Amino acid sequence: MCAQYCISFADVEKARLNIQDFVHLTPVLTSSILNQVTGRNLFFKCELFQKTGSFKIRGALNAIRGLISATSEEKPKAVVTHSSGNHGQALAYAAKLEGIPAYIVVPRTAPDCKKMAIQAYGASIVCSEPTDESRENVTKRIVEEMEGIMVHPNQEPTVIAGQGTIALEVLNQVPLVDALVVPVGGGGMAAGIAIAIKTLRPSVKVYAAEPVNADDCYQSKLKGELIPNTHPPETIADGVKSSIGLNTWPIIRDLVDEVFTVTEDEIKYATQLVWERMKLLIEPTAGVGVAAVMSQHFQTVSPEVKNICIVLSGGNVDLTWVKAAAPFQSVSV
Amino acid sequence: MCAQYCISFADVEKARLNIQDFVHLTPVLTSSILNQVTGRNLFFKCELFQKTGSFKIRGALNAIRGLISATSEEKPKAVVTHSSGNHGQALAYAAKLEGIPAYIVVPRTAPDCKKMAIQAYGASIVCSEPTDESRENVTKRIVEEMEGIMVHPNQEPTVIAGQGTIALEVLNQVPLVDALVVPVGGGGMAAGIAIAIKTLRPSVKVYAAEPVNADDCYQSKLKGELIPNTHPPETIADGVKSSIGLNTWPIIRDLVDEVFTVTEDEIKYATQLVWERMKLLIEPTAGVGVAAVMSQHFQTVSPEVKNICIVLSGGNVDLTWVKAAAPFQSVSV
Repeated sequence: MCAQYCISFADVEKARLNIQDFVHLTPVLTSSILNQVTGRNLFFKCELFQKTGSFKIRGALNAIRGLISATSEEKPKAVVTHSSGNHGQALAYAAKLEGIPAYIVVPRTAPDCKKMAIQAYGASIVCSEPTDESRENVTKRIVEEMEGIMVHPNQEPTVIAGQGTIALEVLNQVPLVDALVVPVGGGGMAAGIAIAIKTLRPSVKVYAAEPVNADDCYQSKLKGELIPNTHPPETIADGVKSSIGLNTWPIIRDLVDEVFTVTEDEIKYATQLVWERMKLLIEPTAGVGVAAVMSQHFQTVSPEVKNICIVLSGGNVDLTWVKAAAPFQSVSV
Repeated sequence: MCAQYCISFADVEKARLNIQDFVHLTPVLTSSILNQVTGRNLFFKCELFQKTGSFKIRGALNAIRGLISATSEEKPKAVVTHSSGNHGQALAYAAKLEGIPAYIVVPRTAPDCKKMAIQAYGASIVCSEPTDESRENVTKRIVEEMEGIMVHPNQEPTVIAGQGTIALEVLNQVPLVDALVVPVGGGGMAAGIAIAIKTLRPSVKVYAAEPVNADDCYQSKLKGELIPNTHPPETIADGVKSSIGLNTWPIIRDLVDEVFTVTEDEIKYATQLVWERMKLLIEPTAGVGVAAVMSQHFQTVSPEVKNICIVLSGGNVDLTWVKAAAPFQSVSV
């Protein structure tokens, strides 16, 4: 299985050794109310408690530690990425840990709070115009000027291998797990987890979950070919706006069992349910997996798939968003 | 030590046996950022994850199970309390578990969401006018009409013993704990925990924390006599508006080491810090203990008191409150 993909299971194992002393072994929580709602035994892998508030630190740190061992004596002069979100924060934090300057390209229209979070980890913000073209150009220029190394948020193989370490923990923490549910944007986490699960326990299902408004993964699986989102997707789940890419697609194509899409309302409802009932301040992107398991479509999944682990991918919710959201309705279950 | 107080340590041990199969052993979480801010090793006892969203289920369930074993063959006809908050929900849930009707007296001005939460657990709401007198009269009437038994939110001895079970868990979960920090309203949790801690490990400090706007516990300790709040307190920490009472005062007087008061701004800041950095949706009352450890006054506590466990008492925050709160400022630490 390894040859045709950008990473092998050995890369995930290596990632674990690279990062395990620097990331949290995040807890797995349960909720009797959510079990009742879904008719399954749910296990919530709490990556919202992870360093920097999301799973992204796993991949970012593995990438940077990989760079250091690859360049052996000399550290890279700088690392660069484009991401106003969790990968930006994670790379900033990881770079600081290793004493490497980090440059994060963000659209000048990104919210101040996101820029501040990145700066708080000691990275430099470089603004681009809010277009793909400007983002690419600015990133390229910074890489050249700083003699930096680009760390792609989801197609970089060491990033994919880093995210896969979640699966190793889940198999230990939930030995009887029947399925994992993973939000999918660029597909780094889904691909990394799929490689690990299908090597160690092929009978365990790997399900991807994405907004219907950003359903490139669903469409690609349906058509059997990589079909990126054609328009910039409009979704509250800002962590999964990216399309899957050349490195993650083959893994997802072969090893992800099914893709579930959910509406914006379903995402909001699930997110709010987790806030109210589990008291976990997840970001809407993390609500995508919960929404998937609560969806009509998920009822087609065999009742034998009983023990389901949902990765709560992050907790970097903008509290001003909570305030701006449509009136809260009491969630009745 | 037992004779002069309304409960003994044996009552706390009995409470544990009564309730342990029906409540969660809530996890203890840590936060490197909060450690950094306070210069201590903090341990957060997550009672916000407890059944019904707060520690109150411990006391309510112990009271009801105590009533059942006391009346041996016949169950009580009904249980009654006045509380629009966590005790009301907890008693409703506990009564349902044991198949006993529950009547909860709430001021007619209480928010609908609180009434709905109580009703969702199957209890009957009885409205009073929003005055102490009306509340007492209505409660008395309902007790008589329903031949019910009143379960006081914080002065009922079995309630106090139930809350004390938190201490037994903390001593196991944080063996090297030097101090516990407990929000204090009526004082049920502070008193129960103090009885257990000072029996099992007298060197461990028990600190109470309360809003400066509801500082009856602080004033009472200062003057050496029970001095209830003279006016209904104005505080965002609605779970600790009650005054300590005749049963909790002697225990608090003798066994609580110190009381820390915090301002409304300190409570809001601490609550928001826990939301943003720990991703835990605590209610402001739970923020009172965090604020206390962050306060100027707390810096007078010896650095040898290093390992400090803060009880995050509950997570029943009204999400509309989050929206209505003053503009969020980014918390910089």
